[in-house]
Amino acid sequence: MAKEKKQNAKQNAKDDKYVKKNTPIKEKSKSNNNKIQKKHAPKKPSAQKTPLKIIPLGGLGEIGKNLTVYEYKDDILLVDCGMAFPDEETPGIDIVIPDFSYLVKNRDKIRGLVVTHGHEDHIGAIPYLLNNINVPIYATRLTIGLIEGKLKEHKNLATATLNTVSPGQTLRFGELEVEFIHVNHSIPDAVAFAIKTPVGTVVHTGDFKIDTTPIDDRVMDLARFGELGKKGVLAMLADSTNAERPGYTMSERVVGESFQNLFKKAGNNRIIVATFSSNIHRIQQIIDAAVSFGRKVAVSGRSMLNVVSVAEKLGYLSVPDNVLVDIELIKKYKPEQLVIITTGSQGEPLSALHRMAFSDHRHVEIIPDDMIIISATPIPGNEKLVSKVVNELMKRGANVVYEKMYDVHVSGHACQEELKLLMSLVKPKFYIPLHGEQKHLYKHALLAQTMGVPKENTLIASIGDVIALTKKDIKVAETVTAGRVLVDGLGVGDVGGVVLRDRKMLADGGIVIVTVTIDSVTNEVVAGPEIVTRGFVYVKESEQLISDATLAAEDILEYCYIHNIRDRNAIKLKLRDGISKHIYGVTHRSPMVLPIIMEI
Amino acid sequence: MAKEKKQNAKQNAKDDKYVKKNTPIKEKSKSNNNKIQKKHAPKKPSAQKTPLKIIPLGGLGEIGKNLTVYEYKDDILLVDCGMAFPDEETPGIDIVIPDFSYLVKNRDKIRGLVVTHGHEDHIGAIPYLLNNINVPIYATRLTIGLIEGKLKEHKNLATATLNTVSPGQTLRFGELEVEFIHVNHSIPDAVAFAIKTPVGTVVHTGDFKIDTTPIDDRVMDLARFGELGKKGVLAMLADSTNAERPGYTMSERVVGESFQNLFKKAGNNRIIVATFSSNIHRIQQIIDAAVSFGRKVAVSGRSMLNVVSVAEKLGYLSVPDNVLVDIELIKKYKPEQLVIITTGSQGEPLSALHRMAFSDHRHVEIIPDDMIIISATPIPGNEKLVSKVVNELMKRGANVVYEKMYDVHVSGHACQEELKLLMSLVKPKFYIPLHGEQKHLYKHALLAQTMGVPKENTLIASIGDVIALTKKDIKVAETVTAGRVLVDGLGVGDVGGVVLRDRKMLADGGIVIVTVTIDSVTNEVVAGPEIVTRGFVYVKESEQLISDATLAAEDILEYCYIHNIRDRNAIKLKLRDGISKHIYGVTHRSPMVLPIIMEI
Repeated sequence: MAKEKKQNAKQNAKDDKYVKKNTPIKEKSKSNNNKIQKKHAPKKPSAQKTPLKIIPLGGLGEIGKNLTVYEYKDDILLVDCGMAFPDEETPGIDIVIPDFSYLVKNRDKIRGLVVTHGHEDHIGAIPYLLNNINVPIYATRLTIGLIEGKLKEHKNLATATLNTVSPGQTLRFGELEVEFIHVNHSIPDAVAFAIKTPVGTVVHTGDFKIDTTPIDDRVMDLARFGELGKKGVLAMLADSTNAERPGYTMSERVVGESFQNLFKKAGNNRIIVATFSSNIHRIQQIIDAAVSFGRKVAVSGRSMLNVVSVAEKLGYLSVPDNVLVDIELIKKYKPEQLVIITTGSQGEPLSALHRMAFSDHRHVEIIPDDMIIISATPIPGNEKLVSKVVNELMKRGANVVYEKMYDVHVSGHACQEELKLLMSLVKPKFYIPLHGEQKHLYKHALLAQTMGVPKENTLIASIGDVIALTKKDIKVAETVTAGRVLVDGLGVGDVGGVVLRDRKMLADGGIVIVTVTIDSVTNEVVAGPEIVTRGFVYVKESEQLISDATLAAEDILEYCYIHNIRDRNAIKLKLRDGISKHIYGVTHRSPMVLPIIMEI
Repeated sequence: MAKEKKQNAKQNAKDDKYVKKNTPIKEKSKSNNNKIQKKHAPKKPSAQKTPLKIIPLGGLGEIGKNLTVYEYKDDILLVDCGMAFPDEETPGIDIVIPDFSYLVKNRDKIRGLVVTHGHEDHIGAIPYLLNNINVPIYATRLTIGLIEGKLKEHKNLATATLNTVSPGQTLRFGELEVEFIHVNHSIPDAVAFAIKTPVGTVVHTGDFKIDTTPIDDRVMDLARFGELGKKGVLAMLADSTNAERPGYTMSERVVGESFQNLFKKAGNNRIIVATFSSNIHRIQQIIDAAVSFGRKVAVSGRSMLNVVSVAEKLGYLSVPDNVLVDIELIKKYKPEQLVIITTGSQGEPLSALHRMAFSDHRHVEIIPDDMIIISATPIPGNEKLVSKVVNELMKRGANVVYEKMYDVHVSGHACQEELKLLMSLVKPKFYIPLHGEQKHLYKHALLAQTMGVPKENTLIASIGDVIALTKKDIKVAETVTAGRVLVDGLGVGDVGGVVLRDRKMLADGGIVIVTVTIDSVTNEVVAGPEIVTRGFVYVKESEQLISDATLAAEDILEYCYIHNIRDRNAIKLKLRDGISKHIYGVTHRSPMVLPIIMEI
């Protein structure tokens, strides 16, 4: 039953409503990929002179906001358009997106955006790109489904051009041709691209792992990578996320076995599993395990509900009838009849699992002996958040399975042996590690070198680098504008360095505001000075401190009056310096001191 | 040579200047520990009625600020007095210390403070305790040396009573008797305590590991733990830090072998090693490796310089003549002649290694092929800081060895097999996991149960719990005030929940200040309203937003004037709500809105 549904999904993908007649899709059959006539291909001599430009605008020296530009003469193809998450350097920021300046400047050249898979770090910035340039989008069926949801939320679905493509198909974008190749990852329907250019073929892996026993039985199309390698691949750009890790990433199927064991161990207790909402195969395995133990499944968390609904509708998730129950109705069932699938595997403060841990969830209250499985590892930076939730759940008596215990999570990214295997099939002449911090890129480049790629043929690039690739060499010819744009509420890019610096200063020491009203004619103080503080000290217990600071302000204002200092900025400066110094002397703290002078 | 010096250190410890005649040290010989006459021991029946109270005031459900109270009738003994580091929940805070309320209230009962070892999470709050209660302190030689340095910094050394004790010695504090027992840890001179009470003997391990090949050849005194176990131990309180990790913690000596291999691999390049300044055995091994390769050693970082100087003076570090060179003079040497030992293994922003990475160090500039060894693992929460430094060093072409590569770090805490070994020797009737978050305590309690301690005899406590221990049972009888006190600059405890909430709000959205001056008689606005923002938007590009908000404020003030609303708080509330709503509508952001009304 489940398998049939999945087969249907594959079939349906080929005649999806979004594949319009005017899309540049040339082929649909897997076997005919190489018969495409290159009508517009330039003559050889010119090809050797004009390099292919590859310009990463995100995803290098950082995790997230992946966006790569492929440019040949007047044709630009974009690969992925993701967001990154804010960190302690960007307080109050909602998301981080790439700087699109280069794309806006070259909007007329852009032929399309192809997307490897539906994770936020590959699709999350698409709505913001479309607000600037309405580029047509090409991706596999599930990826399109997830992009659709995202655009609906941002209210720019109506004007978007979305095209569903199947693995094996090839699209032409001017002088560039793109073949979609199936890969494994922690979300279904992920693809790599073989980008055929007048200079040569470039393989762009996107995120991938090699899973020989995936849940949907669709192993990464290694044969196709092998064929490409035999014909000659000029360059490969590949996923560096796990380049530091030796060995292989385990198969997703391993997690299913762990679920079976743990569900058995749970006995008569309730089971709660937290995982990434986009990991549909993981969710499938949780449902399968629930079904095999005769349990109902309830889903909690907005993104989990969204994805389960999209995935079920598109046939990527197979749920027998009468298994799903509404989270609002779980009270009807005994603990041993229930599995709850929830968001919050990263300890996110507003997530469903976090709410459960801190008794703030409307429908789920943790009871002693609940078995709670956190089927994920913390993304770097989230370790403490996850620990906090685990500790809190344990305080309530729950039995928590987390981190590396019991193989309840596997990575979606290739480890060193998988990277080496792909290198040995593709045999690229040039190598560009993609998707990773400097340390990942560095290890990945070393790995390519151990596989025989000469050191001068590997390139660790930075965002904004224009990598010029010819048949003979690779170099960074120039750079273009690249960086991060911060999204805060509805504002895109209106929070920059100055605002962030102020936020950090406010967070560290709070603010001391000195207000005073001055008669603009006589220069006399007519009201104040008054001192108001926020985030500095607990005011009720620091009255002396505040009144001393007020006296200091009075002295400064009197000095200004006596010396006939009338320039408002000069008075402000004196107040700021004087009060800062006074406060530091008494407290050894440096709050932001902000003088405000009003005039009547 | 090195060994001789270490032997001397041991000898010297026994007649240290701090051991005054009026200290309660009863014995100095290791073998006679059990001959002490218990003059003041109460009669048996009473002993069975009066329980021993154990009150953890820190270190449970958290990492750091370890402080445990042992109380029997009118005698209180304190074990350790540490600090904790601030986290993202406590922005701007320098350090966190335990709440001393219970101790201040019971100051007359407090007989002494015994300290297990010289790490900050065990000694860091001592200066603050002494500012409240001048309790005499007892610790081993190096620990006393480090406490001395700390008190000197805080200017309360002169009034402190410091007593040096050697492992094997026993002290009496009223009805409580404490034996110092040597253990291994990531700092020399660490001890556990056997606390003999009228109710029975309690073993308090402090931080420990079992190293059968330690650098100073002093293996943990397992025999003594065995003797105690044979005589009968009522309860054990033990280190939970690594209770989640199976197996054994590797010997410190393993790291020395790695250094030898890496130093060889470094060839003609400079070597920079970052580690914890308190890990004197690690520093010894770096120096030993440097000497064996004929390199000079320079030291960078304030705490590293301090500790190296104290440790060398007290004989815990053995450095041949002419090996140490001043960091200011390293330009005189070629790269292959140098090893630099530095702070910053946790990626701390102000540390020496961080400065080197970001080209901000006065004496060390990273050059390509420098071999940089980070001899530490990131403490949870520091992962991203360390990655940032590694990435930056790599960008400068350095060869960075970090995290789990090449065994360049071992933990200082016992893993599961070591904990089990100690349990099997001590055979305690009751078990209280210490030092750890809930998840560590939980695993540790389970481990004790697998070793035969009945579930009802293991207790996972919280800070403030008064654990009442009799020969027959263990229970939490009541609770006392316990918690965290935040230190910010010179202020101790003047930053609490309200201030932190404000700081977080300021960090997330910045502040919008609305100032207005009102005539107190006519209720007319005579100046303003003016809007000033910090950390909200980049003002120059948001003039429209600010002027619209100012108009909104004018409307509100006019409404108040027309309706004769004179109550200042009512006007403030209207301004705050109105401006907040206006700003949210336009930007979807929620800065702190602060109205300030001045009167003439």
